[in-house]
Amino acid sequence: MHVNKSANNTSSTMTKVGIDAISYYVPALYLSISDLAAARNIEYAKLNKGLGLHRMAVPDADEDAASFAANALLKLINENSLDPKTIGRIYLGTESALDAAKPTSTYAVEAVEAELKEVYGERCFKHCDILDMTFACIGAVDALHNSLDWIRAGKNRKAIVIASDYAKYELNSTGEYTQGAGAVAMLLSESPSLISIGDTWGVASQSVGDFFKPRRLFDKVEVFKSTAALLGTTLTDDEAKNLMEKDTSSFWSDGEAKFNIFKEEPVFDGPYSNECYQDRIKEAFEHFRTQKKVNVLKDWQHLLFHLPYAYQGRRMIVNNWISWLKDNNSINKLYEIIGQPSSQADSEWIRNASKTELYRDFTSQKIELGECASSDIGNMYTASIFMSLLSLLNMAYDKNIHIAGNTIGFFSYGSGSKSKVFEGIVEDNWKSVIKPSKLFEYLHQRQSIDVSTYENLHKRKLKNSVSNQQYISLSNIETTPLKNGYRYYSFHN
Amino acid sequence: MHVNKSANNTSSTMTKVGIDAISYYVPALYLSISDLAAARNIEYAKLNKGLGLHRMAVPDADEDAASFAANALLKLINENSLDPKTIGRIYLGTESALDAAKPTSTYAVEAVEAELKEVYGERCFKHCDILDMTFACIGAVDALHNSLDWIRAGKNRKAIVIASDYAKYELNSTGEYTQGAGAVAMLLSESPSLISIGDTWGVASQSVGDFFKPRRLFDKVEVFKSTAALLGTTLTDDEAKNLMEKDTSSFWSDGEAKFNIFKEEPVFDGPYSNECYQDRIKEAFEHFRTQKKVNVLKDWQHLLFHLPYAYQGRRMIVNNWISWLKDNNSINKLYEIIGQPSSQADSEWIRNASKTELYRDFTSQKIELGECASSDIGNMYTASIFMSLLSLLNMAYDKNIHIAGNTIGFFSYGSGSKSKVFEGIVEDNWKSVIKPSKLFEYLHQRQSIDVSTYENLHKRKLKNSVSNQQYISLSNIETTPLKNGYRYYSFHN
Repeated sequence: MHVNKSANNTSSTMTKVGIDAISYYVPALYLSISDLAAARNIEYAKLNKGLGLHRMAVPDADEDAASFAANALLKLINENSLDPKTIGRIYLGTESALDAAKPTSTYAVEAVEAELKEVYGERCFKHCDILDMTFACIGAVDALHNSLDWIRAGKNRKAIVIASDYAKYELNSTGEYTQGAGAVAMLLSESPSLISIGDTWGVASQSVGDFFKPRRLFDKVEVFKSTAALLGTTLTDDEAKNLMEKDTSSFWSDGEAKFNIFKEEPVFDGPYSNECYQDRIKEAFEHFRTQKKVNVLKDWQHLLFHLPYAYQGRRMIVNNWISWLKDNNSINKLYEIIGQPSSQADSEWIRNASKTELYRDFTSQKIELGECASSDIGNMYTASIFMSLLSLLNMAYDKNIHIAGNTIGFFSYGSGSKSKVFEGIVEDNWKSVIKPSKLFEYLHQRQSIDVSTYENLHKRKLKNSVSNQQYISLSNIETTPLKNGYRYYSFHN
Repeated sequence: MHVNKSANNTSSTMTKVGIDAISYYVPALYLSISDLAAARNIEYAKLNKGLGLHRMAVPDADEDAASFAANALLKLINENSLDPKTIGRIYLGTESALDAAKPTSTYAVEAVEAELKEVYGERCFKHCDILDMTFACIGAVDALHNSLDWIRAGKNRKAIVIASDYAKYELNSTGEYTQGAGAVAMLLSESPSLISIGDTWGVASQSVGDFFKPRRLFDKVEVFKSTAALLGTTLTDDEAKNLMEKDTSSFWSDGEAKFNIFKEEPVFDGPYSNECYQDRIKEAFEHFRTQKKVNVLKDWQHLLFHLPYAYQGRRMIVNNWISWLKDNNSINKLYEIIGQPSSQADSEWIRNASKTELYRDFTSQKIELGECASSDIGNMYTASIFMSLLSLLNMAYDKNIHIAGNTIGFFSYGSGSKSKVFEGIVEDNWKSVIKPSKLFEYLHQRQSIDVSTYENLHKRKLKNSVSNQQYISLSNIETTPLKNGYRYYSFHN
């Protein structure tokens, strides 16, 4: 392997930087996975015991990635009594952007500025640098990475990074039960109270098509002709063109030869995407190790992953765990239980290894606490790894587990594809920061919806919201020509 | 004005960082603005003398923002004999992204890796951090800003920033004559040979809808019914729904209640966008000055702007110029020519000021050299301000103008909206870096197309490319279900 050391050299004297505070927003509605399993004729145990799924967050009719982000941002500011004028940047990682030019972060900030107006006056983020970053599920990790460098490059700088996404898959598809939604917002600063993050970053990239959101192209004349055929009329190309020009709605008559249809649902190949995830994680970890020595079993007390489903991390990391046992000179413990493999690629032996108590101990010690929120929310795309951090911190708080000084290894992944591996240390003051979080208390008081309501929301058939919770939501979409499509947000009562 | 100083404090000991090399890609086809003016019945002088327009770059049938970026990236690597393995990141600013999850930068890198495979082996960017940034026309400035911080945070780091866009407006619209396309790629490093960039950044943001690219929502049942009406059939909602379900193409039958149509062409309000641009630039410049004193007339020898059309900068900066005359104690020179204004908002007096020889001297000294490329290309969105830099450097080189040591003020703007103001210094070695650039030589040897060919390209009616130049281009779009919509690029012969 050719490793590029020079491109990632780090300077020796570094200010401690990291996450000073963290908030979240998860939609008030959820669908029980047991209800979904029943409706789809899938064995519930396969989803629950197999993948760790329990409940799935469902966005209401008036929610989107901008409203999730706005709610998480407002909560972060209010819970921590932040002065918005001290925030130098708000960077959003999302793959659920609402516009191809105007950043979704600006819609979120516009909504929050309106809420803060009474206290801080107009435009409290007037000199704040606002931006969207896009790389599937890793965009918010990129926002974190870049914002930490920005904090290091100055003095007393404060940044907010938001991860916000709506993981929506086709009804009845193999991705349907791994849907989810929500946002996490983090305050970054020097001398952080919650998690300090090191400057060693393992990176691996490869352009692949494991999961993506392309525009769907349709030839207009062909579609018009096939529509006519549905209505019992056969048209020539010229007849179709002539009729299309008579359309007054611009749908057929805008002169373009093709439709570009956008769908929130991705094109994806699940098994291939799993493979890409594993390969990139492995390469990024190797890249990390060329820069900094680490014995994962000894040095990293917790491992957090991008979680498309709750058990993705523990399912995927078995091979790495075996090599970490070797690094730690403790591979013989495993050999004593299941013998040695017949070859390096002995998949049955690897499967046996994953079923040992040794592996269960490893996952329950280092991985499990970070999975719990995912079981109750589902996939949050870019927000998933940060929700996993919230899960670990809330579980440790609720169960009174000592984690101050512990090191966390982060394994992030974005389809398309890129992985980044980095580490953070839990700061002494973490408990007082996480105290108001109450993640699981919130998750358990959400409103359950039935499969039919879920399907109507999914198909965008509902005009009114289902929940009666208070949150920032989409209130209107402009239809006048000069602002056609502009989105307005306000508090939903 | 409430200015946030603490959020932007900069540390005192800084390594010199900036642009070490720069390359571009502009499509091989262009449309003469005089031909367009004749076809649209617009007085040519209004476009040419008034806005500075001469030629407009037109993407060929097989070109897009990924292929532009790939060509600029490959040229940067080849012209500067860069070892790809020393590049730690490739960040792309674009508002012409081709996918909502997979970054357009990954497509560009995939195409370039294929071209470099023979020399550097497979995956020469394996450990490179690749990312898209989105904020209308300022995304690439954000990529520059962030990448400079990343370089400062380490040692011997090298980054590439690409700006790539296709500025496409509706046929016959008021934006049509300001279209354009292309990419600029820049190598960033410590001790740069071309332009060093300071760490003082003036920032101003406000969420507005001056120009954006929303999805266009259409109710499926309504569209189906109105299509039936075009064919002479009146349907009830239920009849429409029943027929839609019979469609086998998924166009009508995917279960969604609405179409999300994507259009490359923006929704915009020209005069309002101009106003937002002026306001943000003014606020960002004020923010810059709270951090660093500057007397623009003395300290900045060149001013570069985001240029939607060539003369946008000189048209928009008149008010600022008047205040800069005051800063420089030379406002009396202007008063001697046109007297004093009746009020601060005396628009006739300001218009008179813009027509004085004093203002013409100012623009010809500080602005004009940066406008020339825009006159020959049109709007390049995110790439526009960097093409303006290339214009200045190439003009100075071609005319043998001494610019080493000169300071450049950059006024960037992205709709939606944000401005950043920053400064750069031309390094002593600039001539040897810019020598192979030959921008204007290239622009003058492009292929002219007629209005009818331009319109067919615009409407996406052409299946084959028009140009016979060699460049990286879109060769295929996948149609198999698991990779439906994946884009393949290769050298076009």
